[in-house]
Amino acid sequence: MLEQEIKIPASHAASYRIIIGMDILGSLWSRVEADFAGYNKFVVTDENLVSAGHLQKLLGREKAPTFIIKPAGETSKNIDTAVAIIEAMEKAYLGRDTLVVALGGGTVGDIAGFAAAIFKRGVLVLHIPTTTVAQADSSVGGKTGVDSSISKNAFGAFWHPAAVYIDVATLATLDDRQFRAGLVESVKHAIIADSEYFDFLECNLDAVFGRKPDVLEQVANWNCKIKGSVVEADPGEKNLRRILNYGHTIGHAVEAASGFELLHGEAVAIGIIAAGLIEIEMKLAEPGRLERIRQILQKLNVPVTLPKELADKDLIDLIKRDKKAVNKWPKFVLISKIGEVYSHDGQYVVDVAPEVVEKVLDKL
Amino acid sequence: MLEQEIKIPASHAASYRIIIGMDILGSLWSRVEADFAGYNKFVVTDENLVSAGHLQKLLGREKAPTFIIKPAGETSKNIDTAVAIIEAMEKAYLGRDTLVVALGGGTVGDIAGFAAAIFKRGVLVLHIPTTTVAQADSSVGGKTGVDSSISKNAFGAFWHPAAVYIDVATLATLDDRQFRAGLVESVKHAIIADSEYFDFLECNLDAVFGRKPDVLEQVANWNCKIKGSVVEADPGEKNLRRILNYGHTIGHAVEAASGFELLHGEAVAIGIIAAGLIEIEMKLAEPGRLERIRQILQKLNVPVTLPKELADKDLIDLIKRDKKAVNKWPKFVLISKIGEVYSHDGQYVVDVAPEVVEKVLDKL
Repeated sequence: MLEQEIKIPASHAASYRIIIGMDILGSLWSRVEADFAGYNKFVVTDENLVSAGHLQKLLGREKAPTFIIKPAGETSKNIDTAVAIIEAMEKAYLGRDTLVVALGGGTVGDIAGFAAAIFKRGVLVLHIPTTTVAQADSSVGGKTGVDSSISKNAFGAFWHPAAVYIDVATLATLDDRQFRAGLVESVKHAIIADSEYFDFLECNLDAVFGRKPDVLEQVANWNCKIKGSVVEADPGEKNLRRILNYGHTIGHAVEAASGFELLHGEAVAIGIIAAGLIEIEMKLAEPGRLERIRQILQKLNVPVTLPKELADKDLIDLIKRDKKAVNKWPKFVLISKIGEVYSHDGQYVVDVAPEVVEKVLDKL
Repeated sequence: MLEQEIKIPASHAASYRIIIGMDILGSLWSRVEADFAGYNKFVVTDENLVSAGHLQKLLGREKAPTFIIKPAGETSKNIDTAVAIIEAMEKAYLGRDTLVVALGGGTVGDIAGFAAAIFKRGVLVLHIPTTTVAQADSSVGGKTGVDSSISKNAFGAFWHPAAVYIDVATLATLDDRQFRAGLVESVKHAIIADSEYFDFLECNLDAVFGRKPDVLEQVANWNCKIKGSVVEADPGEKNLRRILNYGHTIGHAVEAASGFELLHGEAVAIGIIAAGLIEIEMKLAEPGRLERIRQILQKLNVPVTLPKELADKDLIDLIKRDKKAVNKWPKFVLISKIGEVYSHDGQYVVDVAPEVVEKVLDKL
């Protein structure tokens, strides 16, 4: 018997730039052309962005092959859409010197990022996020994926962007429900990483709802700083990065159980309350903490209890299918106080017995 | 306008083990269990491996969830098969602690490796290659992918295996055409990297055809050494690794034009001859070199001229769609002598004018 050892060398460190501004969409394309000269650009967006005029504003008089996702939203976040995008890139004779420009919300970014990750074994992707959830969360960090009929992001890849350009003015056209649901990820960032940011959000939510440019810029900046620092420390989600999953384990199950009638942020809001109830069960919560979190979420006008029609759904089965599950049961992220994740033996995810989760689901 | 820089840290160096032996399949599963304790195993194979008895030999009395690709071969190497594999893994409640065991030829390895790369953003894959082409080439190096209706490996990822276990006894059941076509990759390795290996193949082809264990072990060992050293130096295919593409640029186009009636190795054999003709056109060939290559390929009984029915196919269009094409035209790998790739200004791929390629296709 012969043996050989094949070495896989370390990859080089790299970096990417996030730009946050107000009303910069119209000037971004020339920046894209300058920063990524020599790449063929391919735009992925959805019909909402087209009708809001954002695609036209981005391109101006320039032309670029473009794929428009129809219908907009979670129902298109599946492998068929990713395949259609890739076939469109093939029909445009694009090669590995392609830059995919993802203009849109989290769904567009997830699909386009995944298509870029697997097109000819990977091409560059640049995100121009246009929703609260995408500007807060999904455009930074390199998670991409599409859903299967069974679970979210069943297909996916870690694929870091080449750059992220944020124009908070694009939020002006976002409908109120999407806008508010997207802010749940901002609240989550504050809960897990920064009590000062939590205070800021509590005090400035009215200005946020009024979509005041300077406050929106600050929110985007705070979100990218928190998300970025976590991702830098643990890009492959071995440990620390999992804190970003706060509220998501039960949130994802609730989202799937609703048949995606609930928006991601709405489901995560319920998941955050569930995490708070678990913390109470496990004696990790100081008095009044969950109430404070519940109040800010209620002010966002997102659900904080399990909708009645989901009460008889098998959430436990969906939780077992969580992609981070080991031996068919996931670990949970909990907090010790607002701004600080609970850790045990250096691990940021902890065991929670199924019975505790079942009890909490009954209370939810 | 605010700006942030997000750092992507370097990944750690890693390594994986290749084991080459004769008649070791029956003892491999206990090695898999020992080397990858704590992982849930999921086997991907195809119907040919089942009927040859290899799946049963591998598993013995052990049980593991298994996906059997039907029909075996290139026609199944598409996104639908990858999706079906992932859905089967989901139905088995598998999580990120999954080890995909790919038992089969290059097609099985490419599909299973790709499914592992994108399942829940990536799980481990272990290759047990059972064909000459897979043992020589595709199991080592981390290239995975499936074809679209337009081009090969339109969907794909770089995804290094966790280990490669080779039992040359599995070649005994391989049909003669597959066996011989697979050896084209061995000839290619010799042409680009090792004239001594080329001499060895010339002298020992009869023993190879007789499937003599010690010679097959030596061939596998030589192939893995050459492939491994190239991949170690350039895992992401920035430069050196592209030498492995010798004969493949035109080979892939011929393969696609044949509607995959030609086996990969058969198409690459034609591509190798085409590369030799390009070298003559570009005055890079010493007299008699192409003849020597043609003779060893003829001894393998693979085609060395373009089949008549492909003469009127638009190979140029297919070459433009090569996934390494930049500005819709690929560069080519050529050799300066047997065992040594031609390089220019430190680059291992060179420009060849479309007119030269057209002329060579006419001669082919």
